[in-house]
Amino acid sequence: MPDYENMKEYNFLNGQILLSEEAKIHVSDLGLLRGYGIFDFFRAVNGKPVFMDDHLDRLENSARLMGLPIPESRERLKEIILELIELNPHDLLGIKVVMTGGYSPDGYTPAEPSNLMIIPKPFIFKPADIGMKLMTYEYSREIPEIKTLSYISPIRVLPKMREAGADDLLYHLNGDISESSRSNIFIIKDRKVITPKDGVLYGVTRKYVLELCREHFEVEERDVTLKETLEADEVFTTGSTKRVVAISQIDNTIFNDGKIGKQTRKIQSLFLERELL
Amino acid sequence: MPDYENMKEYNFLNGQILLSEEAKIHVSDLGLLRGYGIFDFFRAVNGKPVFMDDHLDRLENSARLMGLPIPESRERLKEIILELIELNPHDLLGIKVVMTGGYSPDGYTPAEPSNLMIIPKPFIFKPADIGMKLMTYEYSREIPEIKTLSYISPIRVLPKMREAGADDLLYHLNGDISESSRSNIFIIKDRKVITPKDGVLYGVTRKYVLELCREHFEVEERDVTLKETLEADEVFTTGSTKRVVAISQIDNTIFNDGKIGKQTRKIQSLFLERELL
Repeated sequence: MPDYENMKEYNFLNGQILLSEEAKIHVSDLGLLRGYGIFDFFRAVNGKPVFMDDHLDRLENSARLMGLPIPESRERLKEIILELIELNPHDLLGIKVVMTGGYSPDGYTPAEPSNLMIIPKPFIFKPADIGMKLMTYEYSREIPEIKTLSYISPIRVLPKMREAGADDLLYHLNGDISESSRSNIFIIKDRKVITPKDGVLYGVTRKYVLELCREHFEVEERDVTLKETLEADEVFTTGSTKRVVAISQIDNTIFNDGKIGKQTRKIQSLFLERELL
Repeated sequence: MPDYENMKEYNFLNGQILLSEEAKIHVSDLGLLRGYGIFDFFRAVNGKPVFMDDHLDRLENSARLMGLPIPESRERLKEIILELIELNPHDLLGIKVVMTGGYSPDGYTPAEPSNLMIIPKPFIFKPADIGMKLMTYEYSREIPEIKTLSYISPIRVLPKMREAGADDLLYHLNGDISESSRSNIFIIKDRKVITPKDGVLYGVTRKYVLELCREHFEVEERDVTLKETLEADEVFTTGSTKRVVAISQIDNTIFNDGKIGKQTRKIQSLFLERELL
């Protein structure tokens, strides 16, 4: 077993793999000065990246929608990621790919090349057998279909969220829910699995869960009201750091007596099976 | 005269004044990874900071509203700024103070100390005798009263804005205008000076312009519709990089035959006089 305590961490920054402590960017970076950047995040389990191509597809889409050229080819990106996984040999590794508008001479206009960072970090899953508690929050991300670096509102509300004993937020606006701060939301009502279609980030876990659910349930992708969410039989959330996790409570509404529902359990195991394929 | 070409630039970063090329922050900074940070910007003219205390007041207010402790006292901040002005002896110096949520171990929760950068750069004023052209844009900043690092939408629309020949955006939502991407907006109708009261950043130039206008015009701070803006006699914008600049055109509406209006000229000279006090 590797000596984790004394293990060096390695990052990638603008063409170079380097010790994490040396991964520093100049203060004129447009991600830092203006929040102009995107990222993606996926896992490597026992040295094997999970759904990497889906995440790189999404990174490319975010980059295109933000007008940010990716300075490495897809093939080279994968080589770098595999090298980083070897250099950071944790059983569970989270890999964050961040790309910003570069070193802007005027502090406002994106400049080429984009700054590209790849930051691997060991991580721990949310336990799959404990439900999460959400706090409703009136909000919609600015450009929901892009995985931007913009998290001011959910971070600013962290103290209030923790005071309420909640693990995450449930965004809603004009009566409809959209997503959580970093994951997608599904509800189950009368054996129908329902998830918001618009105004959300199209999660990779969401995609596979939808595929799997279509084989076992009736599935609807459409607007979902907050009211029907609170009246659902079961609610669950999906994301790369969570896989499928039950929501046991939203504000004061408790689902299924606080226990994980049968259908959510079934979807959890279907997804785990799919991921381990 | 200093040898600008070969002049070194100096920044401040977390307790140290250092050469700009060495001003680098680690990639785990929460401003970079999550856009969690604030800034302020003011000028030094011929070595003398302009309205510095107003800007530091606003920085403190932004910091408080974001829950970010400022790692230096007000007095020490001013000492550092004055030292940076001496080390960067440009006639016109823009001074940007940036503060972020620190090096976050989990990449999400703000950590202490905040990262504090002060970045001086020479700059050039928008010419006061040429009007600017604005493109209307349906948008409102997420937390308008805080000077956050969040500029994704206006930067993303830059290519479209430039294609339209516009110099900046005019934000409007639900029929009301708010501000431009980096400055405040005033309209003049029948010798009344009117500016939006809510949903805007409270600019330091805006504050002094309001004070001065109250001595010479009727002044209203209230909701301002886009319709009345387009029907105004004169429109102008205020900001630390602009002072007072006329708006000669919004979309296809031209004001005052494209020339700077008399009342705007008066306010320009009133402000310049006040600044040079």
